[in-house]
Amino acid sequence: MLIDRLARDLYSEICHIPLVDPHSHINPHAAASRSLDDILGYHYYTELSHSAGMSQDHLDEDLPARERVRAILKYMDRFDNTAQYGWFLEIARAFLGFMGDHVTADDCDALFDASERVMSEADWEETVLRRSNVEQIFLTNEFDDPLDGFDTARFVPCLRTDDLVFRLGDSAVLERLAKATGVMVGDADSLRLAIRKLFEHFTSKGAKACAISLPPNFAPYALSDVGQGVLVESLSSTAEDDIEARQAGIFWLLAEHCREFGLPFDLMIGVNRRVYEDGVYQGQDLFDQRTSLIQYRELFNTFPEVPFCVSVLSSGQNQELASYSWIFPNVITSGHWWYSNIPTYIAQDCRARIQAVPKTKQIGYYSDAYKLEFILPKYNMYRKILAQILADDFVRTGVYSETQAIEFARLLLRDNARRIFNV
Amino acid sequence: MLIDRLARDLYSEICHIPLVDPHSHINPHAAASRSLDDILGYHYYTELSHSAGMSQDHLDEDLPARERVRAILKYMDRFDNTAQYGWFLEIARAFLGFMGDHVTADDCDALFDASERVMSEADWEETVLRRSNVEQIFLTNEFDDPLDGFDTARFVPCLRTDDLVFRLGDSAVLERLAKATGVMVGDADSLRLAIRKLFEHFTSKGAKACAISLPPNFAPYALSDVGQGVLVESLSSTAEDDIEARQAGIFWLLAEHCREFGLPFDLMIGVNRRVYEDGVYQGQDLFDQRTSLIQYRELFNTFPEVPFCVSVLSSGQNQELASYSWIFPNVITSGHWWYSNIPTYIAQDCRARIQAVPKTKQIGYYSDAYKLEFILPKYNMYRKILAQILADDFVRTGVYSETQAIEFARLLLRDNARRIFNV
Amino acid sequence: MLIDRLARDLYSEICHIPLVDPHSHINPHAAASRSLDDILGYHYYTELSHSAGMSQDHLDEDLPARERVRAILKYMDRFDNTAQYGWFLEIARAFLGFMGDHVTADDCDALFDASERVMSEADWEETVLRRSNVEQIFLTNEFDDPLDGFDTARFVPCLRTDDLVFRLGDSAVLERLAKATGVMVGDADSLRLAIRKLFEHFTSKGAKACAISLPPNFAPYALSDVGQGVLVESLSSTAEDDIEARQAGIFWLLAEHCREFGLPFDLMIGVNRRVYEDGVYQGQDLFDQRTSLIQYRELFNTFPEVPFCVSVLSSGQNQELASYSWIFPNVITSGHWWYSNIPTYIAQDCRARIQAVPKTKQIGYYSDAYKLEFILPKYNMYRKILAQILADDFVRTGVYSETQAIEFARLLLRDNARRIFNV
Repeated sequence: MLIDRLARDLYSEICHIPLVDPHSHINPHAAASRSLDDILGYHYYTELSHSAGMSQDHLDEDLPARERVRAILKYMDRFDNTAQYGWFLEIARAFLGFMGDHVTADDCDALFDASERVMSEADWEETVLRRSNVEQIFLTNEFDDPLDGFDTARFVPCLRTDDLVFRLGDSAVLERLAKATGVMVGDADSLRLAIRKLFEHFTSKGAKACAISLPPNFAPYALSDVGQGVLVESLSSTAEDDIEARQAGIFWLLAEHCREFGLPFDLMIGVNRRVYEDGVYQGQDLFDQRTSLIQYRELFNTFPEVPFCVSVLSSGQNQELASYSWIFPNVITSGHWWYSNIPTYIAQDCRARIQAVPKTKQIGYYSDAYKLEFILPKYNMYRKILAQILADDFVRTGVYSETQAIEFARLLLRDNARRIFNV
Repeated sequence: MLIDRLARDLYSEICHIPLVDPHSHINPHAAASRSLDDILGYHYYTELSHSAGMSQDHLDEDLPARERVRAILKYMDRFDNTAQYGWFLEIARAFLGFMGDHVTADDCDALFDASERVMSEADWEETVLRRSNVEQIFLTNEFDDPLDGFDTARFVPCLRTDDLVFRLGDSAVLERLAKATGVMVGDADSLRLAIRKLFEHFTSKGAKACAISLPPNFAPYALSDVGQGVLVESLSSTAEDDIEARQAGIFWLLAEHCREFGLPFDLMIGVNRRVYEDGVYQGQDLFDQRTSLIQYRELFNTFPEVPFCVSVLSSGQNQELASYSWIFPNVITSGHWWYSNIPTYIAQDCRARIQAVPKTKQIGYYSDAYKLEFILPKYNMYRKILAQILADDFVRTGVYSETQAIEFARLLLRDNARRIFNV
Repeated sequence: MLIDRLARDLYSEICHIPLVDPHSHINPHAAASRSLDDILGYHYYTELSHSAGMSQDHLDEDLPARERVRAILKYMDRFDNTAQYGWFLEIARAFLGFMGDHVTADDCDALFDASERVMSEADWEETVLRRSNVEQIFLTNEFDDPLDGFDTARFVPCLRTDDLVFRLGDSAVLERLAKATGVMVGDADSLRLAIRKLFEHFTSKGAKACAISLPPNFAPYALSDVGQGVLVESLSSTAEDDIEARQAGIFWLLAEHCREFGLPFDLMIGVNRRVYEDGVYQGQDLFDQRTSLIQYRELFNTFPEVPFCVSVLSSGQNQELASYSWIFPNVITSGHWWYSNIPTYIAQDCRARIQAVPKTKQIGYYSDAYKLEFILPKYNMYRKILAQILADDFVRTGVYSETQAIEFARLLLRDNARRIFNV
């Protein structure tokens, strides 16, 4: 709840802007939740419960869904201080008819029953989308996703390339690639051909972006420096230098195809995978603050035609991002990602971008959601912070009228994404 | 002074929570100050005076205590803008009857006389503890501290291990270790035996934690990687690799003993010693922001049973800490340390933790004090910031009632420390 | 516009303090702008327009000045959210009689005409200085600047040494040095002699500082470690080690001369040059957050007599700076530089310094301006932030009276610079 009257008014206006959500992990074949288990199975809740002391045994998939939910709710009072708890409370109120101030384990059965009731309604997906005021949602599709059987105007495909860059050495990945493209990669030419086929397939199905998440120490360099050979001849090599060159080379090839096919490239920079080895599913990754966008210097210089929509994991690196986007025409600030997606860092990072980066080059937010129900509370968190910044720094100081402030918000929440991703 | 009414009310309630102060450098045999010289001899005042231009000659221990005090007070108007000046002003008011708005050199004699008068009272220690509402204070004991002659229920022993890890190559340290344990370390087995004896001694005397401060580049790794031999055979080696392996190995051995003896391990990460070589006593250490908790990945994974209470020196690394504590069940956020212990960084760092980390895994604050009188102003600084955050982000927004907010504060100031350290 | 009444009152008082601006790029022979082209030719506007999509063709120097201005104004509505737009709006209002709320391309001719009219007035420089309440402005002079033909009491010379340290390998630089000093550098002795002559020349002309900007990875080390030989014998070497040693050695020599000639040394730490290779003039440089003041440890220890006025580029490194300045008597915090010179980072960084560093060791701000007209809006941005901090953290909390708060501001804006630079 916003206390400040002006911020509340702006927030309420901003909520009328139909959203284009440019990054999610929604499965378009099962976009909405089917029960509370889908909601509380989100890694934020499993990892916070586990971090607060819950054994992972309670998450066993052989258990009844209701019992998994009960276990998490039982631990929730240990993290009812967090932003993530706030999202859940908002979902319970907005979608499950919850009227209380606080969710506890005692609410388990009532909430679970309510979730089964509403989520089994035939038009539940429509209901959630309408209440959330979402118009388009970007997906994150594996390269061998057929992209069939859903409305690609609503659910916009996006080619996720992590497997290609970081796991092409696995024979399983090579086989998936062969199956998807008809090309068994064996040399640089066949690799290039396979990638071209992926881009053709994806763009023919309406894909509007290529995306990848990158570890903190990743530094792409030009294919000419790598040498074409290394792309594939080293596929079986596990020498660190070979791996590094191969990854850099494949990444570069993807950037070339983004240029050719006119796709923006989403770079999600900074994640170390499997840091907590015994963590819950999707709750094992962390970061190393010691990373710099200087590692992307050659990339940004070489591909001026490719919009790079950059997400970072730390507030320290956000200052770099704001500065790089202020200088490089092709660097776009993108959302508030993962460990940076809590109010204190959003406020700080958003303010820096708003003060330093052309307003046409900022993608304000994305939900990163796995289920549609999370779009509402996550965007609301962002919209409240944005409304307060607009109230304090723009409207009250006379920089913008209220109308201009709303137009600015429209760029951040909708129009920039539409223009940059060409949707 | 808090301006905001709600924050003031919360602050005043929070002040009623009896403190468990989980990290200090108090000498239990002389816990309270004996004169103003003990107060202004705190390195914060000597280093700020020196930084502002005072020659160290004025700190000579052969000078009369009153003249050392006079010298610092003379320079105090050059740093009356700092948080540390604020602590002193609060001590002067709370304990020395000072009524003014501003302390200057003119107040020297009156304050010094007052300090001698009150601090010589037989129950001064009791008086300070009572007014500060402190119940338990953790110490930081060298490994050869006899731990005799004081109430270990009030002053909780804690095994400081810096000398073992970083200075075991010094023959003086080896001799102290032999004297303390009866074991002259000469090989890996004798080292293990000596450490076991230390843990037995400390836990038998009521020790509740093991602690160490670590340089920014320190990265522990598994004993199995180090090889047992290196632990001791390299004791006399000054080759960098040997030193690094030895330090990593001894550290690992300590973690194994923490596990076995059920002691949490306080990691105070990031300090470079003797950076300013001609600095005042204890005023020579600084940091390098380029450090990451990723260096502790293997440690956190290997010892899930050991609570690691982690302190960091920079706000950049605090974002890592909040994230690691959100993911790793055994990583606890701990206090606001040294160069991060000023209001603007406390506010930012505290807010991030409160929004991202289960509330049961946060040790809100510790005094780090050398003399009891500093507990009050340091905790008050923290409590005011906490009260303002609770007012703005929790009570006003309807997340918590005032009562719930106070209960949250009780976890941060008392109950989490009691549970985690088992006191 | 400040909303808060107390902050507004403080601001208005602070504006009466005559400024000493301790770092600028003003050309004393053409200090004020001659038309709007000089204003909008400032790299902040060319780089933001370009970043927002403007081709650099529009900046061609063969175009009429009015058309360059028109092009930038045409793109300005894409960055009217930025702090830099705010500076321009304030210049238009304060100096060009602009009465609107918003500058757009439609205002081009009226503003351009107004600029030509007022800026051609004979006393325009005086007018700007008077309205900006500036008393002294430091320059940044190349080593071969004759320093003739201007009032060095108003425009204080400062020896910029980037070319000496980083480009002495260029024969053109060696020739300029020979021409300026009469010394053709060929060995360590002649280099030392040439540098001495520069310092003699500059100090005889009233220079009050030596300055340099440094890349993030620069680490000076003692001349004795370098070996005198490397200074010059390696001049033609392009081996990385030789270059590094040569740069470190020359830098050290400069520090020795600062000591001998009693000049403070301005260190502007963290800039990587030509990161965006096709960027506009002066709009190509960026930074790498991974840098630390620990790299300057030996320097700060070796030259206690030299005040090092340190500027940094990131808020992360500002925490280091505040801490190093709190500990080292010879480290001064200096201004809010470039990518850190936007309100959200200024506020955070300024607050940290104010809470941790003796008030006599802080140089609050400098304009970094190329034209006099920018001093007013840049200082106003800083003064507003400072006034709000003083209102919230000092006056309202009873730490300072309003009068004391203004005196503190006087140190930051004037008196510290006068004392430290001896003007």
